[in-house]
Amino acid sequence: MKAKVYVTLKNGVLDPQGRAIHNALEALGFAGVNDVRQGKFIELDLADGASDADIDEMCRKLLANTVIENYRVEKA
Amino acid sequence: MKAKVYVTLKNGVLDPQGRAIHNALEALGFAGVNDVRQGKFIELDLADGASDADIDEMCRKLLANTVIENYRVEKA
Repeated sequence: MKAKVYVTLKNGVLDPQGRAIHNALEALGFAGVNDVRQGKFIELDLADGASDADIDEMCRKLLANTVIENYRVEKA
Repeated sequence: MKAKVYVTLKNGVLDPQGRAIHNALEALGFAGVNDVRQGKFIELDLADGASDADIDEMCRKLLANTVIENYRVEKA
C-alpha cells in the first residue's frame, strides 16, 4: 500500500526557501509570479495492514512539525 | 492561478533523506514500512496569464533537476 504525505508550512509562517525560489524565478525573467511556497512530499510504501491511525501517528511524531506545518495524507 | 509542482527523484536514484526517514520510523517502533521516498512540493501563485509552457519552463530551468528528478504539474 502506498501513502502520499504532503507537508506544507502553515499560513503566516515565513518560508525562506519559497522566497529564494521566487527571487530566482524573477532573476530568470519569469514575470507574473505572485508567491511561492515550498513544502515536502513523502511517499510511504507500507505493509497492507497499515491503518489510517498509524499513518497519522507517523505524521504527527516524525514527518510534520505540527507547530508550524500542516499535513495531508492520500492513500493510493 | 495556483499551480502545484511535485518533484520526485527518479527510480534508481539514491534517496538518503528517504532512508533517514525510514530508519527514524523504525526506531520509533513503526513496523511494516517497506520504503520511503522524499520529494518536493512547490506551490506557485501565478498571474492569470501564465501558460502551461511557462510553468514547464520554470520546472526545467529551476525547480527540478531533470537529470535525476521527475516533475508533475497540477493546475488549480
